Amino acid sequence: MTLQQSPSNAATATVVEALSARFGTDRVSTGASVREQHGRDESHHPTVPPDAVFFAESTEDVSVAVRLCGEHGVPVVAFGTGTSLEGHVAALQGGLCIDVSRMAALLRLSVDDLDCTVQAGITRKQLNEQLKREGVFFPVDPGADASLGGMVATGASGTCAVRYGTMRHNVLGLTVVLADGSVVRTGGRARKSSAGYDLTRLMVGSEGTLGIITEITLRLYGQPEAVSAAVCPFPSTVAAVRTVIACIQLGVPVARAELMDDRQVEASNRYSGLTNEVAPTLLFEFHGSPAGVEEQARTVAELAAEQGGGSFHWATSAQDRARLWQARHDAYYAALALRPGSKGWTTDVCVPISRLADCIEATRADLDASAIVSTVLGHVGDGNFHVVMMLDPDADEEIAEATRLNQRLVTRALEMGGTCTGEHGIGYGKIESLEQEHGEGVAMMRALKRALDPAGLLNPGKVFRADIR
Amino acid sequence: MTLQQSPSNAATATVVEALSARFGTDRVSTGASVREQHGRDESHHPTVPPDAVFFAESTEDVSVAVRLCGEHGVPVVAFGTGTSLEGHVAALQGGLCIDVSRMAALLRLSVDDLDCTVQAGITRKQLNEQLKREGVFFPVDPGADASLGGMVATGASGTCAVRYGTMRHNVLGLTVVLADGSVVRTGGRARKSSAGYDLTRLMVGSEGTLGIITEITLRLYGQPEAVSAAVCPFPSTVAAVRTVIACIQLGVPVARAELMDDRQVEASNRYSGLTNEVAPTLLFEFHGSPAGVEEQARTVAELAAEQGGGSFHWATSAQDRARLWQARHDAYYAALALRPGSKGWTTDVCVPISRLADCIEATRADLDASAIVSTVLGHVGDGNFHVVMMLDPDADEEIAEATRLNQRLVTRALEMGGTCTGEHGIGYGKIESLEQEHGEGVAMMRALKRALDPAGLLNPGKVFRADIR
Repeated sequence: MTLQQSPSNAATATVVEALSARFGTDRVSTGASVREQHGRDESHHPTVPPDAVFFAESTEDVSVAVRLCGEHGVPVVAFGTGTSLEGHVAALQGGLCIDVSRMAALLRLSVDDLDCTVQAGITRKQLNEQLKREGVFFPVDPGADASLGGMVATGASGTCAVRYGTMRHNVLGLTVVLADGSVVRTGGRARKSSAGYDLTRLMVGSEGTLGIITEITLRLYGQPEAVSAAVCPFPSTVAAVRTVIACIQLGVPVARAELMDDRQVEASNRYSGLTNEVAPTLLFEFHGSPAGVEEQARTVAELAAEQGGGSFHWATSAQDRARLWQARHDAYYAALALRPGSKGWTTDVCVPISRLADCIEATRADLDASAIVSTVLGHVGDGNFHVVMMLDPDADEEIAEATRLNQRLVTRALEMGGTCTGEHGIGYGKIESLEQEHGEGVAMMRALKRALDPAGLLNPGKVFRADIR
Repeated sequence: MTLQQSPSNAATATVVEALSARFGTDRVSTGASVREQHGRDESHHPTVPPDAVFFAESTEDVSVAVRLCGEHGVPVVAFGTGTSLEGHVAALQGGLCIDVSRMAALLRLSVDDLDCTVQAGITRKQLNEQLKREGVFFPVDPGADASLGGMVATGASGTCAVRYGTMRHNVLGLTVVLADGSVVRTGGRARKSSAGYDLTRLMVGSEGTLGIITEITLRLYGQPEAVSAAVCPFPSTVAAVRTVIACIQLGVPVARAELMDDRQVEASNRYSGLTNEVAPTLLFEFHGSPAGVEEQARTVAELAAEQGGGSFHWATSAQDRARLWQARHDAYYAALALRPGSKGWTTDVCVPISRLADCIEATRADLDASAIVSTVLGHVGDGNFHVVMMLDPDADEEIAEATRLNQRLVTRALEMGGTCTGEHGIGYGKIESLEQEHGEGVAMMRALKRALDPAGLLNPGKVFRADIR
């Protein structure tokens, strides 16, 4: 898709002109490479560039741009880091991409209240770098160094959700630009509120289709007094998963409980220079008082031993731990490196924890019967796991096979009472899965979409097919 | 208001006839006392009875009734136990009350997954009675023995929210009857999901204005291995609050941290037969392993001593603890008993915890300068506290004075970055406060209301003034 083919090109040109006149030409780009870069995420989904990219620097900037787009019927797609996995940023109807990466300030921090307010473009690493010196941290950590705005928009989680919750639990309030350009502040700084509809959580996971998030008030946590991390190999993936299930059922407050299958361990060893035993493996982290951490670790080691787990390999220094978790966060890139030049398709089901071992086992059998190269890893404490399939995006038969495997996996998870996506969202890759999962609920979602974006200009074609325009 | 005066009376009569024909006359009542009882909650707000009451026994029953009401333009108010505090159940435009109290079944329980599904009419005590024998519990505990449906609808919390979260955090999924009678299942059983808009949390706190909740999937918790509870008197309310602030900032995972001022302690001693020292007092509970509980208690006792707190009085037996927390849950009734025949007006602000001591101190000064009889108590670990004012509901000057005090308190809390309601909701008592707090957000809420209830028949006049019909 090029600028010339886009149906909304003339209208976009008008918007571009207006934005250039107001903010300067260096704030708007119609260059091919910039547009390409903004129409692409980290998944196998094809690149669909916007007609132009606007670099916003404030909520007011976003408001001006969205209002202009509304006046001229131009679609709007928000962009943070482009690290989504279901094609969220693809400009399916062209239009304007609003890049918020220059909005990366920590606007306010209260260590006493354990909260802060940030601009939407700050990334999780940028944020934690600034928080570190104050003795606090923000725990939600998707693999990529995503922007906080993107993390809100997809309802992200990560390795610490088992203890600290997901974005849904850790966003206290938002500043949002609505489809008409008006600015709404949702939620607030109180730990809890029953003041009207929960607009904050309606926006979490709305993927840019109901409004554009520009500022976020986050809940923070004190850095734990003591931290320890351990790696433990298991005779089978199922044995590893059973260990985590036992931890959760016993109420052990593990901070992290991550699974990697043997292939993922091998890939991560290679990519991140680790030397872990190549076997289905759990990565644990414990947070608390020194005595509490020791007690948790002892309990979990016992549970692991009952499942035939090997001895714990401890990452004792902060440096070792950082290396271990960076490797976990890089797992996706490590998997992709197993097949250079491939694109990743990563599944994302989440099931009730009692069904997790069954779900992984059946999925593993499916994968073993297929020629697709894949790894399995996941946030097993939440019941969430990923299959990363390394594909040649130009090989139709590989895409077809991955589609089939994913479809079988989604159906399996739904039959087990689970969800098609634990943390990656719908984008345009999982629209059918959403229908399969939520049926009549999708009609209700569409009603909300029409109420807040009657012209269908906000990230059209995501969450559900665009039915307007 | 009587049956004859109601504007929707003829239409309601048609609906009553249809419901009686289908379900039997014993399932519908137009008797004055039944109607009175269903138009009243536990607050000072005047009783406004519905024109008729329908006793639903299933989601299908609710669907049939709501569809009929839609066809005939009859307002619908859902009713659980009538324990709300902002007039939520008052039938401001008459119409049909749907009583769900007969829908009180525990439909499904998975101890392994720590979740269950209940009908909306089950109360928190009924639920926990059934869960107890399985070693699990549901932690959200408003003062009253409310129905779970009502607790979802108001976004309730209680004494355990500081550790276990509020209804927002503990509802995994819902069955909801929408304004057109259609049935939607939101969320699911997975611990987390990014599958489309978060309809579940949109319904939590929607106060019956967007749909009627008929079934709820809840997150449960294993009963802690060890529990201990303690009562500690302080030289001042501020000293007590400062102790809790220090606990939270240190990350001590207290399960409960409740404040009572001296007047409330006296009232509760009298009402519940306790013998606590009459002083500003904190009630703590600790959950965890035996060693963990001991460590928490030691830390908190040290923090209390730093603020001049007295020695901890331990409620060691399960029976003593049950008595202590029952007294806390009965605090509202105990306060009302200070002035027999009075009605309670209980405020509900919640502020960032660093401002809590200031907020309570300024409020206390306001109350001391007033003739209104009141107590102060609260879930101070969340920054949430209540002033209970005992009023003669027929004395206009008392209502005016309480209105003034509450207004000053709400303004104070909002200036501190707080909310007008931490857990009681808006009903029709706090509509102006919601406007004051959320401004443009209210327009967004109204847009959602119009999208899901275009005829404005679901609990009209709650959350915002009815602007339709």
